[in-house]
Amino acid sequence: MATLEDIGVAAAFNLLSALVFFLAFAILRLQPFNDRVYFSKWYLKGLRTSPSRSGAFVSRFVNLDFRSYLRFLNWMPEALKMPELELIDHAGLDSAVYLRIYLIGLKIFIPITFLSWAVLVPVNYTNNTLKLQLKNVTSSDIDMLSISNIPLGSDRLWTHIVMAYAFTFWTCYVLLKEYEAVANMRLHFLQSEKRRPDQFTVLVRNVPPDPDESVSESVEHFFLVNHPDTYLTHQVVCNANKLAKLVKTRAKKQNWLDYYQLKYSRNNAHRPIMKTGFLGLCGEKVDAIDHHTSEIEKLSKEIAEERERVLKDPKAIMPAAFVSFKSRWGAAVCAQTQQSRNPTMWLTEWAPEPRDVYWPNLPIPYVSLAIRRLIMAVAFFFLTFFFMIPIASVQALASIEGLVKVAPFLNPIINAGFIKSVIQGILPGLALKLFLIFLPTILMIMSKFEGFTSLSSLERRSATRYYLFNFVNVFLTTVVAGSAMEQLNTFIKQSTNEIPRTIGVAVPLRATFFITYIMIDGWAGVAGEILMLKPLIIYHLKNFFLVKTEKDREEAMDPGSLGFNTGEPQIQLYFLLGLVYASVTPALLPFIVIFFGLAYVVFRHQIINVYNQEYESAAAFWPDVHGRIIIALLISQVALIGLLSAKHAAKSAPFLIALIVLTIWFYTFCKARYEPAFIRYPLQEAMMKDTLERAREPNFNLKPYLQNAYVHPVFKEEDEEDEDEFNYKLETESVLVPTKRQSRRNTPVPSKMSGASSPSLSEVAPKHSEHTN
Amino acid sequence: MATLEDIGVAAAFNLLSALVFFLAFAILRLQPFNDRVYFSKWYLKGLRTSPSRSGAFVSRFVNLDFRSYLRFLNWMPEALKMPELELIDHAGLDSAVYLRIYLIGLKIFIPITFLSWAVLVPVNYTNNTLKLQLKNVTSSDIDMLSISNIPLGSDRLWTHIVMAYAFTFWTCYVLLKEYEAVANMRLHFLQSEKRRPDQFTVLVRNVPPDPDESVSESVEHFFLVNHPDTYLTHQVVCNANKLAKLVKTRAKKQNWLDYYQLKYSRNNAHRPIMKTGFLGLCGEKVDAIDHHTSEIEKLSKEIAEERERVLKDPKAIMPAAFVSFKSRWGAAVCAQTQQSRNPTMWLTEWAPEPRDVYWPNLPIPYVSLAIRRLIMAVAFFFLTFFFMIPIASVQALASIEGLVKVAPFLNPIINAGFIKSVIQGILPGLALKLFLIFLPTILMIMSKFEGFTSLSSLERRSATRYYLFNFVNVFLTTVVAGSAMEQLNTFIKQSTNEIPRTIGVAVPLRATFFITYIMIDGWAGVAGEILMLKPLIIYHLKNFFLVKTEKDREEAMDPGSLGFNTGEPQIQLYFLLGLVYASVTPALLPFIVIFFGLAYVVFRHQIINVYNQEYESAAAFWPDVHGRIIIALLISQVALIGLLSAKHAAKSAPFLIALIVLTIWFYTFCKARYEPAFIRYPLQEAMMKDTLERAREPNFNLKPYLQNAYVHPVFKEEDEEDEDEFNYKLETESVLVPTKRQSRRNTPVPSKMSGASSPSLSEVAPKHSEHTN
Repeated sequence: MATLEDIGVAAAFNLLSALVFFLAFAILRLQPFNDRVYFSKWYLKGLRTSPSRSGAFVSRFVNLDFRSYLRFLNWMPEALKMPELELIDHAGLDSAVYLRIYLIGLKIFIPITFLSWAVLVPVNYTNNTLKLQLKNVTSSDIDMLSISNIPLGSDRLWTHIVMAYAFTFWTCYVLLKEYEAVANMRLHFLQSEKRRPDQFTVLVRNVPPDPDESVSESVEHFFLVNHPDTYLTHQVVCNANKLAKLVKTRAKKQNWLDYYQLKYSRNNAHRPIMKTGFLGLCGEKVDAIDHHTSEIEKLSKEIAEERERVLKDPKAIMPAAFVSFKSRWGAAVCAQTQQSRNPTMWLTEWAPEPRDVYWPNLPIPYVSLAIRRLIMAVAFFFLTFFFMIPIASVQALASIEGLVKVAPFLNPIINAGFIKSVIQGILPGLALKLFLIFLPTILMIMSKFEGFTSLSSLERRSATRYYLFNFVNVFLTTVVAGSAMEQLNTFIKQSTNEIPRTIGVAVPLRATFFITYIMIDGWAGVAGEILMLKPLIIYHLKNFFLVKTEKDREEAMDPGSLGFNTGEPQIQLYFLLGLVYASVTPALLPFIVIFFGLAYVVFRHQIINVYNQEYESAAAFWPDVHGRIIIALLISQVALIGLLSAKHAAKSAPFLIALIVLTIWFYTFCKARYEPAFIRYPLQEAMMKDTLERAREPNFNLKPYLQNAYVHPVFKEEDEEDEDEFNYKLETESVLVPTKRQSRRNTPVPSKMSGASSPSLSEVAPKHSEHTN
Repeated sequence: MATLEDIGVAAAFNLLSALVFFLAFAILRLQPFNDRVYFSKWYLKGLRTSPSRSGAFVSRFVNLDFRSYLRFLNWMPEALKMPELELIDHAGLDSAVYLRIYLIGLKIFIPITFLSWAVLVPVNYTNNTLKLQLKNVTSSDIDMLSISNIPLGSDRLWTHIVMAYAFTFWTCYVLLKEYEAVANMRLHFLQSEKRRPDQFTVLVRNVPPDPDESVSESVEHFFLVNHPDTYLTHQVVCNANKLAKLVKTRAKKQNWLDYYQLKYSRNNAHRPIMKTGFLGLCGEKVDAIDHHTSEIEKLSKEIAEERERVLKDPKAIMPAAFVSFKSRWGAAVCAQTQQSRNPTMWLTEWAPEPRDVYWPNLPIPYVSLAIRRLIMAVAFFFLTFFFMIPIASVQALASIEGLVKVAPFLNPIINAGFIKSVIQGILPGLALKLFLIFLPTILMIMSKFEGFTSLSSLERRSATRYYLFNFVNVFLTTVVAGSAMEQLNTFIKQSTNEIPRTIGVAVPLRATFFITYIMIDGWAGVAGEILMLKPLIIYHLKNFFLVKTEKDREEAMDPGSLGFNTGEPQIQLYFLLGLVYASVTPALLPFIVIFFGLAYVVFRHQIINVYNQEYESAAAFWPDVHGRIIIALLISQVALIGLLSAKHAAKSAPFLIALIVLTIWFYTFCKARYEPAFIRYPLQEAMMKDTLERAREPNFNLKPYLQNAYVHPVFKEEDEEDEDEFNYKLETESVLVPTKRQSRRNTPVPSKMSGASSPSLSEVAPKHSEHTN
């Protein structure tokens, strides 16, 4: 148990380390040779070019203007300056709404902090319970401010119940307002946007096989019959997974070829040599450049064959299609209705935007989906509660005794003092750490297996799972102090009304731990984020080894994106801590507030200057965020019931149960009231937009615009790399072919642009789409 | 604990009483003066008229043909003879599918009975556990056949687990097949049916208020804009609740007037006299005929005024409307899509058929609905678990001491021996019995308060609640042996894994009780149903006191309908018992099978000959039935887990947990696969039907057909009673006015007829529906 002083020291230390990170960032970002790392978003948008073509050689790499170092924190006000509307325009709605999660944290917790310090802290502090016990029980100064200091059965506990009501109502009020605001932003975004192919398009899955017709014909006939007035065109989905794999392999080889050619050009003395075996460690030695050139040639041939096969073979056509309509109204109708009497056939859903499609999952049939979902639910249950079993066995293996048993010949090496201590100190922890690092990837793979069809839904599902995992294995494990497996055992064996008690009693005891956690993971972690260490290092390595042209340099920088699947669940942990401790240990709240404030500024800066969002889901994740904050509220209420019953104030339980019922009701109300805005496209909106557009551009020909909007990305990539190869195809198209420069510049900007103006999507004409205009 | 002999005696007794009921029925139904009671359905369809106009006077009342008494059970094969398709045609799909619930009981339990008697009974019987204990524990012969006879920790328990798997798989298989069959029947029914107004109509609720437009204009503009190609017409809903009440009062007075007039006509000596006060017990004496005549006149005037007001006053128009479309496709699209960006405005749903609409609930706004739902959920929780509190206090009051305390002056009367014993013996039980009799009504009132808009959905919701109530207060109370309140307390205080154990251990002990229950409530109860005692008595009373004309006699018989809200939950109790005991006490199964067989025959007879279904929901209740059988399965699995853990076979629990997971998965699979068929109207189906009909009747004018399909029933009733009064309205209509005889004959037949051919619906033209053709 830490005293106030300990906490103070820890806070100072963590604030200092945050300051060091900011200082390092301030220095690094001013160096021109880091410019592409810290302003990558602007480069991708084409609004910034490599600095200092002119000027001294040194100043191309190091910033010598010392005055700029003095204002080392001035990126903060800059980050806050951009208004929200401009931010949406600049980085997309997803990013802007993501920032609102931090903002909602501030909105919820600043008033709660003031209120609880004004009311609860005096009420708690003016007791002597802990002072009297101090001799027996370890207790910290922080606990003097917490509910622990209230004697058993005291009437003062009613204050905490009243405060729980106040906190709940305030949180719900903020959530309601925010849900409404985000829903409006989303509708406004969809409304004010330029034309986007996904507004007109519906993804149709599980097209039933027809012995007489191809998939394409079957789709066309079905929609011509059932949506005669609105059907426009469609694109079938072909299974280009193998082709994509080949193209990826070739790109990798090409990279190596570039590397060796660069090496050779720098040192003309002898040609680079490589080994063909595993990881270049064994096998016969060959000339690296020749080897890769021939490999690439071979691959190119294979790719060409595979491409022909995909375009011609009817077996490569999947029973899924993107069906486009003449109006948004038609698409909205088709996406929201059931088409066939068998509800597992002709499944329609609003198409994700082209960048957002996760192609490999499109052809999974319905029954398989249901089974996959079951398998993944069971797998996730075991992953959450029993993940410690394999790790424990790895740890046992990684211990000295384990290693010696498995490989006795290692005995002499292991017993050397230094190595022994390394193994004992690092290996067991390493196994757990490695697992935790790979966890988001594992969860992502699970989501992919489950069969979601868009990247955004994959990330949302992974986020949900990550949140659950964190809740069980970080929050509950810390509070109840036992592995998840042990908890499961405890909870099953405990009586139903004992469970909240177990949690409730433990909650105030862990306050100091969580304060430290918030400072390390929250404050320092967020400050570290701004440094972008990993991309910085990778960029400079690539820059040194691979970059030959300006185009290479462009590609060397991978700014990454927000990473909803890992980021959001971590924020949710802070909501959970804040709400649980609000009425128990108010001393924790200021730390939460500082976290949200800091994170808001840092991520706003990153979103403006660095991250490049891969897709735009128009804030489709908000219902999840909203739901999880309400779950945090419910948990805080359950914990308070448990705590109060341990404090012999059980007669107050009905009041808190009523609060729980009200909170659940609030959730269902919000779900019915606002969630449809995130799933459906209201016909009124669609009709309005259609009418407006028809009045503005009465002669716009929609068909060529939509014809090739949904083309497997491998065709697009291919196309960018060797355009000439397919020029013969383009000649049959009536679409204007833009210059390469334009199409390159356009692809990475937010979808609203790419949808509206990126004709690179239509550079390929898959043969099987037989509708010409 | 009963021995096999006791059970045998009870079975014989109950079979005998069932036989007596059947005999009584056979005699009563052959008497011509009961003809209208036992064949009321045929009278309502107009296919049967009062018998024996000719013939001897006696044979008009008593059947003297003694041969017909000999074949007293031949209604049974007759009931089974009618093929299902004809049954659907005769009594509607709801009734036909309702019968399938009994059939599914037979399909599930006959194979399970054979299997469990072939496998489980020998396995259980060949142990000596109970014989060894027999001296200590009370145990019955039935228990020799049950799982109780297996020693603790025996490997034979694996047989029960394997059997649980077999039973689950068989039940799920039957359920799946049946769900598919019913879904197909429903779609086929909707497809093959004649034109019905609800196929073209959508119920729109929560029309937002507009300061410049009336509701009618607002609706018209909205749908003309957002469904320009398909919108046809609409009817606003007006608040005619007060008018309906007045009309009802007048009908009651009219009844009394008829009664007095009949009395006067039979005895011309002196005019009948009545008192005007409470229930005719006090107040001044007046001439009954004059009094009622003047009252009716007054009411008629009021009704005319109120009718004018409803039709003219804009405040009487509710923010709801029935919107009709040019095609089924248009209606299906509108019902399935979200109209406005605020999902609580312009709520659309597939309109119930006109007879099915529950008018008073149409204008409830969205927020109010959400709050009502919360209140009712809480109220139902208290009703289920704490209903014993008020009843116990009534019982305390109804005891001798209670009565004496409240009303000391009753002391001498109460202490008389006979009255004392009556009070002590009957009153406490009476309070509970009265509550149970009124329970379905209470639940129905709760559903009405919740705001459902159709009778069918009201009944479905009441059925769900009644099932839950029965489950807690009949099944659990018997098994755990304590009131619901005590159970709640036990379950909260017990550990999570103790709960299944508590249930599981008690289940085999209650087998004999439930066997008796099945015989009394199931066998004798069902056999009693066929006698129709209540309607029989009421009919003859009415016939004696009120009937003057043939038309009166028609109205005197109220055959009732199936009563889904009370009937289905009771059947579900048998599914629950059968599935729970299948692997525990197989001896119970034959009793269940006999119940289902008997009930199937009896209800098939009743549906063919008696019941008159009030509405047709096209088997919309099936998902509920399916879901509840699966809940019974889950409960049986949980109970088995508990039982096995008490039998020291805890290591087998994972196998049953896997079974539970699989069962839940099966439920979600079926829900996704089949439930849409019961909620949505697939566009493909709608389009097919539209196309067919357009080809068959290219010149059919839909508008007049739909214009007045949804008129508040009070306008229709009024119309039937005093047609002349509104003839001036009819003259403005272009619809053919049928003769009274036709419209009377048509109204009570199944909806498919009434929708297609009952023009009585369009006899009134509410002024506010301003669309003329």
